[in-house]
Amino acid sequence: MKISPNEREYYLADIPLQEAIEKFDDALHLHNRKNSMESEHVSLSNSVGRIVSETIYAKLSSPLANTAAMDGIAVKSSLTVGATESAPVTLVFGRDFQWIDTGDVIPDGTDSVVMVEEVGRLEDGDVLLRSSAPPYQHVRRIAEDIASPEVLMQKGSEIRILDIAALASGGYGEVLVRNKPKVAILPTGNELVPVGYIPEPGQVIEFNSVIVSEQVRAWGGLPTIVTAVPDLRDDIVSKLSDLSRKYDVVIVLAGSSAGSEDFTASSLGKIGSILLHGVAIRPGHPIILGFIKDIPVIGLPGYPSSTVITSEIFLKMTLEAMLGTQLRRREKVTAVLSRKTSSPMGEDEFIRVTLGKIRDQYVATPASRGAAMTMSMARSDGIAHIPSAMEGIDEGAEVSVDLIRTRPEIDNALLLSGSDDIAL
Amino acid sequence: MKISPNEREYYLADIPLQEAIEKFDDALHLHNRKNSMESEHVSLSNSVGRIVSETIYAKLSSPLANTAAMDGIAVKSSLTVGATESAPVTLVFGRDFQWIDTGDVIPDGTDSVVMVEEVGRLEDGDVLLRSSAPPYQHVRRIAEDIASPEVLMQKGSEIRILDIAALASGGYGEVLVRNKPKVAILPTGNELVPVGYIPEPGQVIEFNSVIVSEQVRAWGGLPTIVTAVPDLRDDIVSKLSDLSRKYDVVIVLAGSSAGSEDFTASSLGKIGSILLHGVAIRPGHPIILGFIKDIPVIGLPGYPSSTVITSEIFLKMTLEAMLGTQLRRREKVTAVLSRKTSSPMGEDEFIRVTLGKIRDQYVATPASRGAAMTMSMARSDGIAHIPSAMEGIDEGAEVSVDLIRTRPEIDNALLLSGSDDIAL
Repeated sequence: MKISPNEREYYLADIPLQEAIEKFDDALHLHNRKNSMESEHVSLSNSVGRIVSETIYAKLSSPLANTAAMDGIAVKSSLTVGATESAPVTLVFGRDFQWIDTGDVIPDGTDSVVMVEEVGRLEDGDVLLRSSAPPYQHVRRIAEDIASPEVLMQKGSEIRILDIAALASGGYGEVLVRNKPKVAILPTGNELVPVGYIPEPGQVIEFNSVIVSEQVRAWGGLPTIVTAVPDLRDDIVSKLSDLSRKYDVVIVLAGSSAGSEDFTASSLGKIGSILLHGVAIRPGHPIILGFIKDIPVIGLPGYPSSTVITSEIFLKMTLEAMLGTQLRRREKVTAVLSRKTSSPMGEDEFIRVTLGKIRDQYVATPASRGAAMTMSMARSDGIAHIPSAMEGIDEGAEVSVDLIRTRPEIDNALLLSGSDDIAL
Repeated sequence: MKISPNEREYYLADIPLQEAIEKFDDALHLHNRKNSMESEHVSLSNSVGRIVSETIYAKLSSPLANTAAMDGIAVKSSLTVGATESAPVTLVFGRDFQWIDTGDVIPDGTDSVVMVEEVGRLEDGDVLLRSSAPPYQHVRRIAEDIASPEVLMQKGSEIRILDIAALASGGYGEVLVRNKPKVAILPTGNELVPVGYIPEPGQVIEFNSVIVSEQVRAWGGLPTIVTAVPDLRDDIVSKLSDLSRKYDVVIVLAGSSAGSEDFTASSLGKIGSILLHGVAIRPGHPIILGFIKDIPVIGLPGYPSSTVITSEIFLKMTLEAMLGTQLRRREKVTAVLSRKTSSPMGEDEFIRVTLGKIRDQYVATPASRGAAMTMSMARSDGIAHIPSAMEGIDEGAEVSVDLIRTRPEIDNALLLSGSDDIAL
């Protein structure tokens, strides 16, 4: 039988979300975490998703010379003036034209290309044109695509698949990008079992580390899941100290057993500084933000939906600061709420919703709000935000929904289920 | 000086896009490419983005027993009936309640949890309650999240980060997913130089393989870029034959030099079957679809924007067929065209556009349509589709735009540039 938890330190204050974000952003700045990642060269084949660390200027123009855009003949356009169906112009092989392939530089003295399909061939190798070829017809002019040294990509932007063509044409085989922040993810708790194990009564399957690890990867970091430590202050202190020397960010995951957050806070307090403990959001609340020297340490709450929401706010902004970029945001849609939903004044609440559609209007139905409900996380379409200044949202009122699934996926599912346009 | 290309076989017919898609889909079916990928077990940590190959049923319920959702005391609710501020109820330590932590199974004989903050402690270890505790207060009931054997994920769905919690809670440490299709990417052409090299006049920087490789990765495949072969039929034939034995899909990339497509088609014709050669889309046109035994072989045109568009149609549908899934679609928005854009009747045209916003209406401005223009690919916000039945689209008319960037990214850029709501 457990004894009374007299020794527990409960989280002190629930700071409003916006204030917490500003305070943390200031602290990241003070601890020199803005643009703090060093750079490395990566090949174009490994560059997608990476963040450009210095503005990239074209080293080459494209094309490098006037080149043929079609297979055919290169001619001097003036020789073709007046050619018509009834009065074709004959061009003499070896003197008036040259056969040319797409991509070839057009020869000196020529300024136009006639497509092979429009060239009439005579037996002696000469050709017949039945229309005139204006200057620069089917010619890619020098530097029309890229004029060196124009800007190919701005500092801080993310390299996407479609950027590769311009980077390659501009003369780059590798590019300078920010190193990926190394993020340690430390689960804590006494009664954790790994995924795939059957828990004994009271044990908890520890999967938050896997979720946060995938979030880190999606946000451009390099995650490492560290072996879990039990709720023992000395163990946590020595582990935190060690991790803060080897990683760029340290995430502490509370086990779902009680009081873990408090061990995290008091451990962090011993060797670092606690910026804040507790934010007025739901799910969320017992968040810890602090630093060991200049390394950010983030304690995330243990319930899965709390972990996900708070990580998406505070871990994502940490990685953004260090990478000097703005990472992708979720797509937003406006929906009307299908039933009145109350929410305590003073708290920013994030509720999972499923979406339907009536005519062209999305309708959001709140899912179970239990912070431990994993199926409602998997089955939701999005997350609606009830701002702290509101006590709830009325049925039929508009709400902004951050999409978890893509809109085409949601719309397609609604179409298949027949719930699209149900009111028509 | 080049000679007249009498020997070339030009692509025969431009089949309408929709017909080409249907024909290819039928052929993928006939060649047993639907759901053709075998399965493998992967750990949850390696499962994000993978396609579930069999419907997954929960092995465990969650929670496995009635558990405490808060730290506090477990009580029998009937003992607390009538407790008020003025008439608190005393509970005797060791008989009427037990201290309990979040996640603990509630003891037999109790049915409710009182939060520690609401428990008044007396000196002898007994406690005082100032309000009654209804049955199941702060109790997570057995199976309220997941009731085994309910369906956790449907066959053919993609595992997302937020699915991990439900899979783990449902008893899975690893899941059965489709193998990634192995895709060989073979550049062809006489005058190719790798990315990062400075091309001589007439040479072409070969970067299409890198782009297609990243597309394959994004669509759930495993790309391998094969060493380029020159435009020699025997070389291409022997390479195709070799690759079709080792890979699940073979992509042949034409070099930008002329006639490559024809070497591909005639080579494929020698050892396999050509389903079609030429599709009425712009950019695109000289696409080759065929099979060697049952292995799909796709010849993509050489101009970068043609490569990207045709790959997005035909390679993506191949991977979807083999994986038995529908891959993510681009987000679509409706925009009005800022200037009249003509397009030949009978061709499906895809034009790159940049987006602005006037009030809440997106305005699409066509970018350069040159198929070789890499900067306009990198700088576009989306791709507008002009259907084959239209000769063009008038200024101010509505057009559907597939977004290349995410909408939040576009909206944010417009906001920063001040071009959002310019008409207000």
